[in-house]
Amino acid sequence: MRNNLDTVAILGLGLIGSSIARAMRLKRPLVRIRGYDSSSEVREEVRRLELVSTLNDSAQDAVRGADIVILCVPVGATDAVARSLQACLSRECIVTDVGSTKAQVSAALRRALPEGRIVPAHPIAGSERSGPGAGSAHLFESRWCILTPEAEADAEDVAAVADLWRSLGAEVEIMPPERHDLVLAAISHVPHLLAFSAVAAAAALEEERGYPILAYAGGGFRDFTRIAAANPQVWKDIFLSNKEAVVQISTAFRTVSDRLASLIEGSDEGGLLEELECARQQRFSLEADA
Amino acid sequence: MRNNLDTVAILGLGLIGSSIARAMRLKRPLVRIRGYDSSSEVREEVRRLELVSTLNDSAQDAVRGADIVILCVPVGATDAVARSLQACLSRECIVTDVGSTKAQVSAALRRALPEGRIVPAHPIAGSERSGPGAGSAHLFESRWCILTPEAEADAEDVAAVADLWRSLGAEVEIMPPERHDLVLAAISHVPHLLAFSAVAAAAALEEERGYPILAYAGGGFRDFTRIAAANPQVWKDIFLSNKEAVVQISTAFRTVSDRLASLIEGSDEGGLLEELECARQQRFSLEADA
Repeated sequence: MRNNLDTVAILGLGLIGSSIARAMRLKRPLVRIRGYDSSSEVREEVRRLELVSTLNDSAQDAVRGADIVILCVPVGATDAVARSLQACLSRECIVTDVGSTKAQVSAALRRALPEGRIVPAHPIAGSERSGPGAGSAHLFESRWCILTPEAEADAEDVAAVADLWRSLGAEVEIMPPERHDLVLAAISHVPHLLAFSAVAAAAALEEERGYPILAYAGGGFRDFTRIAAANPQVWKDIFLSNKEAVVQISTAFRTVSDRLASLIEGSDEGGLLEELECARQQRFSLEADA
Repeated sequence: MRNNLDTVAILGLGLIGSSIARAMRLKRPLVRIRGYDSSSEVREEVRRLELVSTLNDSAQDAVRGADIVILCVPVGATDAVARSLQACLSRECIVTDVGSTKAQVSAALRRALPEGRIVPAHPIAGSERSGPGAGSAHLFESRWCILTPEAEADAEDVAAVADLWRSLGAEVEIMPPERHDLVLAAISHVPHLLAFSAVAAAAALEEERGYPILAYAGGGFRDFTRIAAANPQVWKDIFLSNKEAVVQISTAFRTVSDRLASLIEGSDEGGLLEELECARQQRFSLEADA
């Protein structure tokens, strides 16, 4: 098993990238961390917070001598960033990412780096906050990290990336990228779409009626829409790069919500109660897993 | 202004009723609290927790000599409970409630008690937990309580109910029942419907595919679906008694989510980003109000 990852390059030092840096410093203090972010503001904050061993001025500089490169950029930027590294990676270097969608991103990585030792990954962790200041060394603890390597990926490379994530506190699972994307559409992408829509619909009604509506929102609505405060640039990319699964799950969601709506319209007390009871039990099982 | 409410009768001692009792004991310790719940288990727990001054064996006993009766029953039970009180209320007694919907409930109260001094109310506070053990004396602090009196309601009665809620820590607002129901459909009822649907849709997909899906849910999904753990009996009643507004807001919600979905399907990056930015700003304004 290969786990001599002495030098890690993190490209993109926002919430996730900076949290990886923080967690590495805490849990694998001997690892050298090279880092780069395309935003000079973010670089300045990372410098001030002393999150990396070496802060580089370009992605190409950052990956020099790295045993593993972790792309922590919005999924829409994966392709361009990976392409920019073509001439700079050593033969031994593993390339991984943290993208929230995997089928398109994995294909983009493969196209950009046809000879690359690619092991796509997605730590299911985050926050509605963004930027290196919002990062945490504990962000990945007891969280899932899903790896979606191709069948022909080197087993040692996959094991090295799995070990890396386990060392940061995550639980690792391996599955095909298409399954990952469907699962994430159901538990994250479509819920985000619904939360964005619920806020926008309430705001539109408020404007149409000319009286306050959102002002009366209680803790339930705040919890429900917390994910609508997420970074729009990141989420635009996620929706677009997982379009097919998002549309599929949206349709499945609509089938269920239409059924509930028609039980309401038909005043079907028994049927409605049964559906709500069932959803509540499923929600409880979620809490038990937490 | 009439605010000599010496004796309060609370009918229904679940989460809300028991929280009113707790808050009254803390903030208005001189008020006598009479109470009744149709469940003997709930009554036993209330007795054990010593939440009321007098625990009665029937609703009719509980309201005897009360200056105000607060109905804290599921909205679907309002009509029957109010009718059962017809012969027992003094002329001076104010009747209020805490129902999450107001147009149907107000009409039911008026029909049941044509001579009653009725001031419908809805404290926008709650929890996904239920029962007297889950109550809190602080549940209503800094929460809205919306009153929806008829135009011909006695101003002193309205002031007395407003004072009562302010003394428990709530902010009071008065509006027509139809407006209340539309506002609540937007910030609570339809969000609950969406959360129940999102959990049910993910569970259905899990069953169809035969692999785990909900198990990978992170904190975002848990927050988003917390309201799906709410009491199904209570929510069935709320959906059915606010059917018209729920259907109207569901349609408005669908217009927005369809627009977002078609921006995704059409890969309209600019349009999508604009919508997400806008929803995020609206969500932030919510946090600032909190």
